[in-house]
Amino acid sequence: MKGMLFVMSGPSGAGKTTIVKAVLSELEGVEFSVSYTTRPRREDEVDGVDYFFVDEKTFKSLIEKGEFLEWAEVHGNLYGTSKNFVESCLNNGINMLLDVDVKGALNIKKIFKDGVFIFVAPPSFKELKDRLVKRHTEDPNNLEKRIEDAKFELSQISKFDYLIVNTDISASVKQLESIIISEQLKISRFGEFVGKYNFYKSKDGVDL
Amino acid sequence: MKGMLFVMSGPSGAGKTTIVKAVLSELEGVEFSVSYTTRPRREDEVDGVDYFFVDEKTFKSLIEKGEFLEWAEVHGNLYGTSKNFVESCLNNGINMLLDVDVKGALNIKKIFKDGVFIFVAPPSFKELKDRLVKRHTEDPNNLEKRIEDAKFELSQISKFDYLIVNTDISASVKQLESIIISEQLKISRFGEFVGKYNFYKSKDGVDL
Repeated sequence: MKGMLFVMSGPSGAGKTTIVKAVLSELEGVEFSVSYTTRPRREDEVDGVDYFFVDEKTFKSLIEKGEFLEWAEVHGNLYGTSKNFVESCLNNGINMLLDVDVKGALNIKKIFKDGVFIFVAPPSFKELKDRLVKRHTEDPNNLEKRIEDAKFELSQISKFDYLIVNTDISASVKQLESIIISEQLKISRFGEFVGKYNFYKSKDGVDL
Repeated sequence: MKGMLFVMSGPSGAGKTTIVKAVLSELEGVEFSVSYTTRPRREDEVDGVDYFFVDEKTFKSLIEKGEFLEWAEVHGNLYGTSKNFVESCLNNGINMLLDVDVKGALNIKKIFKDGVFIFVAPPSFKELKDRLVKRHTEDPNNLEKRIEDAKFELSQISKFDYLIVNTDISASVKQLESIIISEQLKISRFGEFVGKYNFYKSKDGVDL
């Protein structure tokens, strides 16, 4: 059985990366897809774990080779998801969790129509702005751009499958876990099992 | 906002009642709908909590008054779900969890098309038989009838939304909780919120 693709998205400052990290450390049976980026590494980030940090020249050569499932410029930096990596994991039955910006998520949705797309929103727009300010990594120009971007991103919510309103981190973590667990329980995922126990309709019958 | 209806079903001996009771004691925001039955009360059951235990005459008068959302004869006993009770809870925004046999669930599905229908199956048919035998409450005739009924019931799985294969009770409890949590996060449940933050499309706009 193929793996399932879960795509977590939302505006910067909504808290998606914190939620994703917590779920990956707690929940078995789902793996993280590491993205490429040209953004400078923050102090607490590890190359190859949080992102593959590359320079712009390398990134552009990867674009030309068609290596990216999606890529986008976000706040002046480039981000990309490796197509080969994600596809080979899914083909090996591994469930994948991606953490991408909203434009990237919508691009992936065009290719993986049966992916599960989850939007993380702040409880209010004021709260989102406060979080961006408190993050201390933004210069004032960046901050303003992220706020403008967030307005656009929040207008895209209805294109997603699920919405997590991130008021409380532990509740949000439980919600993402619940989505990942329950999506695997949908009847459509059990073709073989349902057939096996469909005693009155299956041809070769019965495992009594 | 109206409450959501979750209907838990499956053959006798699959373990649905155990799972439902555990979830109701652990998870907030969902309430149990108590069914009527003419089946004799078991020692560990409480009238008005596990079932409303009534005699056949009372039950039949309730049928005539149209009091039941669904009712069915199962293994020679009558079971019914009170229509008024469920509908008034849902209209008051209360999420309801029902524990009914497979025929009853499929009847309810005709009325509540946006209900969430969950099937609990044993890991194997042999395991189901073993559980029925161990339960000690069955005389041999009942046992044989329940096994025949289970074959029919298992053939109905594909009409449900979710399947829980009950190999391990604590895993199954977590799975039912996950279904109840994640169904409430579907985008379609957030009409008002999504509109509120849809800055570029809403008319009266903006909560900045």
